[in-house]
Amino acid sequence: MNLIDRVKNGSSIPEVELVAKSEGVSLDMVVHGLLDGTIVIPANPLHTSLKPGGVGKGLRTKVNANLGTSSDSCDVDLELRKLRTAVDCGADAVMDLSTGGDISAIRRRLIRECPVMFGTVPIYQAGILAIDQRGTIVDMTADDMFASVESHAQDGVDFMTIHCGVTQATIERLRRQGRLTNIVSRGGAFLTGWMLHNDRENPFYEQYDRLLELARQYDFALSLGDGLRPGSIVDASDRAQFQELIILGELVQRAREAGVQVFIEGPGHVPMDQIVANVQLEKTLCQGAPFYVLGPLVTDIGAGWDHITGAIGGAMAAAAGADFLCYVTPSEHLSLPDEHDVREGVVASRIAAHAADIVKGVPGAIEWDRKMSAARKALDWAGQAELSLVPELARKGHQKTPTQEHACSMCGKYCAMAVVEQYLGAKTTTRCE
Amino acid sequence: MNLIDRVKNGSSIPEVELVAKSEGVSLDMVVHGLLDGTIVIPANPLHTSLKPGGVGKGLRTKVNANLGTSSDSCDVDLELRKLRTAVDCGADAVMDLSTGGDISAIRRRLIRECPVMFGTVPIYQAGILAIDQRGTIVDMTADDMFASVESHAQDGVDFMTIHCGVTQATIERLRRQGRLTNIVSRGGAFLTGWMLHNDRENPFYEQYDRLLELARQYDFALSLGDGLRPGSIVDASDRAQFQELIILGELVQRAREAGVQVFIEGPGHVPMDQIVANVQLEKTLCQGAPFYVLGPLVTDIGAGWDHITGAIGGAMAAAAGADFLCYVTPSEHLSLPDEHDVREGVVASRIAAHAADIVKGVPGAIEWDRKMSAARKALDWAGQAELSLVPELARKGHQKTPTQEHACSMCGKYCAMAVVEQYLGAKTTTRCE
Repeated sequence: MNLIDRVKNGSSIPEVELVAKSEGVSLDMVVHGLLDGTIVIPANPLHTSLKPGGVGKGLRTKVNANLGTSSDSCDVDLELRKLRTAVDCGADAVMDLSTGGDISAIRRRLIRECPVMFGTVPIYQAGILAIDQRGTIVDMTADDMFASVESHAQDGVDFMTIHCGVTQATIERLRRQGRLTNIVSRGGAFLTGWMLHNDRENPFYEQYDRLLELARQYDFALSLGDGLRPGSIVDASDRAQFQELIILGELVQRAREAGVQVFIEGPGHVPMDQIVANVQLEKTLCQGAPFYVLGPLVTDIGAGWDHITGAIGGAMAAAAGADFLCYVTPSEHLSLPDEHDVREGVVASRIAAHAADIVKGVPGAIEWDRKMSAARKALDWAGQAELSLVPELARKGHQKTPTQEHACSMCGKYCAMAVVEQYLGAKTTTRCE
Repeated sequence: MNLIDRVKNGSSIPEVELVAKSEGVSLDMVVHGLLDGTIVIPANPLHTSLKPGGVGKGLRTKVNANLGTSSDSCDVDLELRKLRTAVDCGADAVMDLSTGGDISAIRRRLIRECPVMFGTVPIYQAGILAIDQRGTIVDMTADDMFASVESHAQDGVDFMTIHCGVTQATIERLRRQGRLTNIVSRGGAFLTGWMLHNDRENPFYEQYDRLLELARQYDFALSLGDGLRPGSIVDASDRAQFQELIILGELVQRAREAGVQVFIEGPGHVPMDQIVANVQLEKTLCQGAPFYVLGPLVTDIGAGWDHITGAIGGAMAAAAGADFLCYVTPSEHLSLPDEHDVREGVVASRIAAHAADIVKGVPGAIEWDRKMSAARKALDWAGQAELSLVPELARKGHQKTPTQEHACSMCGKYCAMAVVEQYLGAKTTTRCE
């Protein structure tokens, strides 16, 4: 029995209890969310090092960090260090997007050490195997694609990005639309190349029931990929993008009927004034399925600082109801991220997620701010460091320039907190001290 | 005659012509904005190195970088390097907030080398002089305050932050409100301490006409400071904050009647769902005066990465109509910023400003994105670097891991752009190539 079966049958559901406890919400709320599909708990029973986490309505907004080798940069130890950095900085999930070296061996090493939800994009490996064995991606077979999914499932992958909505109909909409940057999703591009060359439908769409059967059997969650996500601001929210989303909405319904957990991936490059509409349409077209957004990047020109571009869009998307933020690192559009990029990417996304959780009213969110500001008012430097996003780094930051005991080096002895307390403090009531 | 007089009298206005040209808008539009107060061009005739810039409705959203020494960290050469870094990274304005060393000498050195709008907060120097000469801030005289303003004007300062809205009535509202972090504005704290100790009204409010006369005489712009800006999320948008804003609205009206350019400073720590209201109320209460926001910071817990916290709030504020973003650096709440912090702070604010300019429809904004994405699609690395926020740093980022000619190290030979072009490229029309 998979998780949804156990929830329905009233069997033991320790994963769900753990999620409810760690989120500070009732078990009943999480159970209800799992049953109506607005919450997912991707937890492959074969991922034995996993501490399960939940994604969806009423829960803390989650952050994913992408890791993985490429054909140009393939160092397994570096990827393991990046994994530890991501987890230490507070990532709730990681995805292994490796496309270089022994992809299966890398995945197995990473998964063994990964305490958070672990995701992959199996089409990468299927495509690369086809190149290695037959010389080109387009000679990949449908069985290759499903074999890749099954081998990932057997390794304990908790959720898989599968671009089931890249259909011949979607590609025709793209063709008629005309875009500046056609397809920027790597998985979407592999499938589109294959479909156009072979003049065939997407096997993950055509044989969707086969995919659902695998998902049921191994109990992994489907992350329905957005192969048609816009890769530039001028392409955002076009007909091709929403054609794919409409198809994904149908596939959500079929996944739920099959008792398979499912969520939806979203854009991409989106101007600020279209973000709310993107989230609202995902929620309506896909019947409240959790929304997992990449960014969104609110401008195309942020290369070198796209973790910031993504944090702006991610905060707005999450505030509008997105549930899961895929980080963007400073190296986006430039190169494979290194450890520093991973750290900056995770932290930027966590800030976006938390800023949104304050206004979403997620339990405990604003209390963190209240405690931090109380420590700040008390000029309690140790307390502030402990409450910061990455305490060790906050301590270093404060020590960068000399500091007196009762103020930071920004204001030195002219600290506003200290001046006001001297004259106003005794005469004023404060809210929470 | 000051700038407004010359605009009214039809005299020569080269500053205005320069602003219209650099913004790509009509001279008539800028003139109209100056006359109705929705645009300011802070340009002290004594600031001879200035290339004038404009702030306000219909213009590009501007970015300010705060510089300056403190009692704990006082290195003039470092401040000069920070000035150059800020300008090289694209800051449209700098403020010298020095409170350590020979404050006048530092200001004069910085101004001489500063090609962008230069601002200060004269009350800092008045307060510190009082401490040096009389032992305490509260022994500062009203004449000390105005003398500081005049000496800054004589040095060529283009705009000055003056906390005219910190009145006895405002402080009484603060007292009744009860706040977690009472006053976090340093200038607001100096004045509040002085007013409470001496039981007197704020001289900048009581003798506002004297301030307007100085502003007219030297032709600097007033940046009406928000001494009561919230210093924590739980204090945001309270009665104390809006009491001050109401008073500032009255002072805007008097400044305009006196032919003095004026704009308004804004918060602060503000949750995402209150940002639009803050901007809209500033625009109504202050009759469309340009809005200059510090952040806003959308959470209190971002220490170490508050440039990101501020970029999220800044983008949202600017998209809602804010005109001028004061940067926040990674060292905010921790220490005085160094050169690296200045760079990161300016770039983060520029991203926020540009993301907003896309949706504000500022002339030319989206064209930058379109060019960048066209270069990206063409895998034109040199073109992308030239179009990036700080071209030299973008080139370094791309070279961090080995890269093939036709792809970056993220995807290596499995570049989505390349795959799709091979199969889809020839069959599809694109919008702009």
